[in-house]
Amino acid sequence: MKPQDRKVAEGLLFTDQYHLTSAQLYHRLGLHERRVQFDYFFRRYPNYGDHQAGFCVFAGFEWLYDWMTGARAGEREIELLRGQTSNSGSRLFDDDFLDWLRDEGDFSGITIDAVLEGRVVHPHVPIAVVSGPLAMTQILETPLLNHLNYQTLIATKAARIHAAGRGRPLLEFGLRRAPDRGALAGTRAALIGGADYSSNVGVSHLLGFQPKGTHAHGLVQVFMAMGEGEIGAFRAFAEAYPDDCLLLVDTVDTLGSGVPNAIRVFEELRRKGHRPLGIRLDSGDLAYLAIRSAAMLDAAGFPDVAITLSSGLDELAIWQILTQIEEEAPRYGVDPDHLINRLMYGVGTRLVTSGSDNLDGVFKAVAMELDGEWKPLLKVSESPAKTVNPGDKRVWRVYDKRETATADVLTRGSEDISRAPLLELHHPVRKDLRRTLGRQDISRVEPLLVATIRDGERAFDPPTIEEMRELRRRDLSHLDPGVKRLVNPHVYHVSLSRELWELKERLVGEAKTNERGSQAS
Amino acid sequence: MKPQDRKVAEGLLFTDQYHLTSAQLYHRLGLHERRVQFDYFFRRYPNYGDHQAGFCVFAGFEWLYDWMTGARAGEREIELLRGQTSNSGSRLFDDDFLDWLRDEGDFSGITIDAVLEGRVVHPHVPIAVVSGPLAMTQILETPLLNHLNYQTLIATKAARIHAAGRGRPLLEFGLRRAPDRGALAGTRAALIGGADYSSNVGVSHLLGFQPKGTHAHGLVQVFMAMGEGEIGAFRAFAEAYPDDCLLLVDTVDTLGSGVPNAIRVFEELRRKGHRPLGIRLDSGDLAYLAIRSAAMLDAAGFPDVAITLSSGLDELAIWQILTQIEEEAPRYGVDPDHLINRLMYGVGTRLVTSGSDNLDGVFKAVAMELDGEWKPLLKVSESPAKTVNPGDKRVWRVYDKRETATADVLTRGSEDISRAPLLELHHPVRKDLRRTLGRQDISRVEPLLVATIRDGERAFDPPTIEEMRELRRRDLSHLDPGVKRLVNPHVYHVSLSRELWELKERLVGEAKTNERGSQAS
Repeated sequence: MKPQDRKVAEGLLFTDQYHLTSAQLYHRLGLHERRVQFDYFFRRYPNYGDHQAGFCVFAGFEWLYDWMTGARAGEREIELLRGQTSNSGSRLFDDDFLDWLRDEGDFSGITIDAVLEGRVVHPHVPIAVVSGPLAMTQILETPLLNHLNYQTLIATKAARIHAAGRGRPLLEFGLRRAPDRGALAGTRAALIGGADYSSNVGVSHLLGFQPKGTHAHGLVQVFMAMGEGEIGAFRAFAEAYPDDCLLLVDTVDTLGSGVPNAIRVFEELRRKGHRPLGIRLDSGDLAYLAIRSAAMLDAAGFPDVAITLSSGLDELAIWQILTQIEEEAPRYGVDPDHLINRLMYGVGTRLVTSGSDNLDGVFKAVAMELDGEWKPLLKVSESPAKTVNPGDKRVWRVYDKRETATADVLTRGSEDISRAPLLELHHPVRKDLRRTLGRQDISRVEPLLVATIRDGERAFDPPTIEEMRELRRRDLSHLDPGVKRLVNPHVYHVSLSRELWELKERLVGEAKTNERGSQAS
Repeated sequence: MKPQDRKVAEGLLFTDQYHLTSAQLYHRLGLHERRVQFDYFFRRYPNYGDHQAGFCVFAGFEWLYDWMTGARAGEREIELLRGQTSNSGSRLFDDDFLDWLRDEGDFSGITIDAVLEGRVVHPHVPIAVVSGPLAMTQILETPLLNHLNYQTLIATKAARIHAAGRGRPLLEFGLRRAPDRGALAGTRAALIGGADYSSNVGVSHLLGFQPKGTHAHGLVQVFMAMGEGEIGAFRAFAEAYPDDCLLLVDTVDTLGSGVPNAIRVFEELRRKGHRPLGIRLDSGDLAYLAIRSAAMLDAAGFPDVAITLSSGLDELAIWQILTQIEEEAPRYGVDPDHLINRLMYGVGTRLVTSGSDNLDGVFKAVAMELDGEWKPLLKVSESPAKTVNPGDKRVWRVYDKRETATADVLTRGSEDISRAPLLELHHPVRKDLRRTLGRQDISRVEPLLVATIRDGERAFDPPTIEEMRELRRRDLSHLDPGVKRLVNPHVYHVSLSRELWELKERLVGEAKTNERGSQAS
């Protein structure tokens, strides 16, 4: 795609068709400025088939805001829409609407309360609450979901992989398997969620991180073809990068040539006063090869150089590798803990694609201004779990006496439960499930939503990526270990206050009665 | 991300760190202009867990070429690299290299032979063969993989979903779950692979397609809040878009209010001389609701309006829905074939993310110029399937007497098998598997690679997206039905010619001997 076309495709028209047809309809009826409120939330954690997440890490908000501030309908956009036809062959969008879209179609009327990036979030909790004029809020739906769903998905995956690697350095290597330009957002989200560095050069620099990498198989192939062999490639690399010497040892025969050649080069480096960084294993039985390599490196007097693993890794693969190392290493005279503490992980595909699932985040209308008052809106559904929690709401995280986050609670916007003596918590979908928390069970109640955007302007000092990482670490430390299990995690409680639950029940009943009545009439 | 930063992150630095360190090393040794050849190929079809692909549809090449023509290291890029430090604190990239990168770091020396987009492709087959100067060819590796892997993955998924829907209209609805800006490439690939239209407004227009959509749940919610009910929303939509009236009927109660209200509005439209388009079902048991809706629409005299299904669809879900319709529809007096022929599909998440897997495409050095001659390169591996097929090669598709594609054959670049009396075909990995095809078994042998780029310049007239779709339809029609099975497909044969097989065997033996020898010395 040519750059000038890309600019248009990534601008205001980076949205779904039905938002534009709806916006025109609202404009014709004079409803386009009517104020509405939408919630962004997801319904279930990512599920990777044989394992699933028990929490998510929120990410993507800052880039959404950047998109909003730049998206306008210029002449090119208007011209494209002008060319669009209905099935009768007439124009789909009329001049009135297109003039309005060109002159007033921006996000200056949008206000957002949101959870901060890096924080742990759970299903059904409004992560971003958006209010603004109806037409532009509706047009925002798809770009908002696009920005927030993907980065939250990837930040979550990164947190899981980082945990599986027991906090050892995690390098994001996914650009080659990442979804086209989505790679940039993938790298950012990985850095927020748990990756320490990325191999992606440009975006790393722009986010304030030094890109990291080893060398390519191609380097070894080239030196072999020139008759200088694998050792020639290693020597050339060590000479060029004596303090950054991480050698890829699997191009020919990992244990037969790769590791012995690396050790020779490390010895040469050491004699020159440099400290070799390590080796990288990129194929074969990574646990076994790590153990055997560790034994060889130990014997050669390099007990501390790193062993970087890559190739098909994700949280389960790393968990398996570490389990195998714990079992198998002693047989080769290698201390498993020492080996595990010298490992680093290069994770590509299954980090930037999340491996096998998506985040089902949605954007649902919850309230509308009518006659100067906010009226809660409802969407019932064939599937009860898809019925929205209506109205303006607040979100609270309740910590128990051990400082463990024990529930996220949704209340009506007018409620303040931070000092309530008793909390009655209702399951968001199942009528029969509720529990009561007394004050004696609670250490503190924290509001989660922050006033981030007011009438299109930034209203807060956004955290840096390093601060987001710190928020993530802090939230994870308050999470029950059961919730953090890689497989079959404990279910974190998300509940509705009694007031909110009663409102929802009442509106569901009214909606069904009204519609059946109006249909029958 | 700010637009000026995005431009930098998506330019020449949209690559992996190790390519730049390798490039500097080559530059220092004067090897950077040495001509090399790399193959792009994938090793296995996408595997979706309980089902897997038996073919892929190639896509992404045109956008790769657009990237190559625009990627240069300007002052900003050079400045970022100048700021990068080694572990000793000194600069990682020196001025010599950065000057060269700024002045000569483009892709004007790159030549590519490639399969055309839209064509069916298989594992181990070189889909793009890239030759050029060593340093820049290496830097191209990651962006090339990024562009081709993702689009091929999505085009393949689209072809599968389209087939499952028996060719009925397929709408790509995935922008909200797509990976950030990768959405644009996802939509393009979906259109090449099997989607008829997309809801993504900007990129649809720029690719020459009218974006398509229905209306949002929000529209119904708004009218309900205003006391005008679902029917009010439907009437307003029908009035604004009388010839494009596709109504979303599941906001309150699909069969209790949605479909009856839609029928009333359709009757009003008909009286005004318009033809209603259809309804959309977006939750619940889609097969059951489609049957019951069809019965109601039939009874009301609308046997032809479309029933669009969406929500969690992929090829297996559609297959299940159609099977259920075939079983269950007669009980409600609905003809299953008639119903299936009025269905349309809106597929989002599992199309633009492929659902659950990636394409493992790689870029491997296969030859290098030495003393004026091309020398085949090898990468052996711990995993035999990862050992590359060395040297310059040609790719041929062999059709049998029924015009079914029966094998893709890789030969050495000097071979022409188009008229060979006998073909000896070797399995690419397993020594014990080979077969012989006589001329009497063959209707024709087609070369697959096209000269697309010569020294950075376009050397062919690229197909339009419509032509790519036609290539895909044609290739699929030549594929054995067993290969197209959604679950457990028949394995398509990819083979090496005897000459190529012998070359590979010889080089593997030499590499192992040489490296073990050099290591022992």
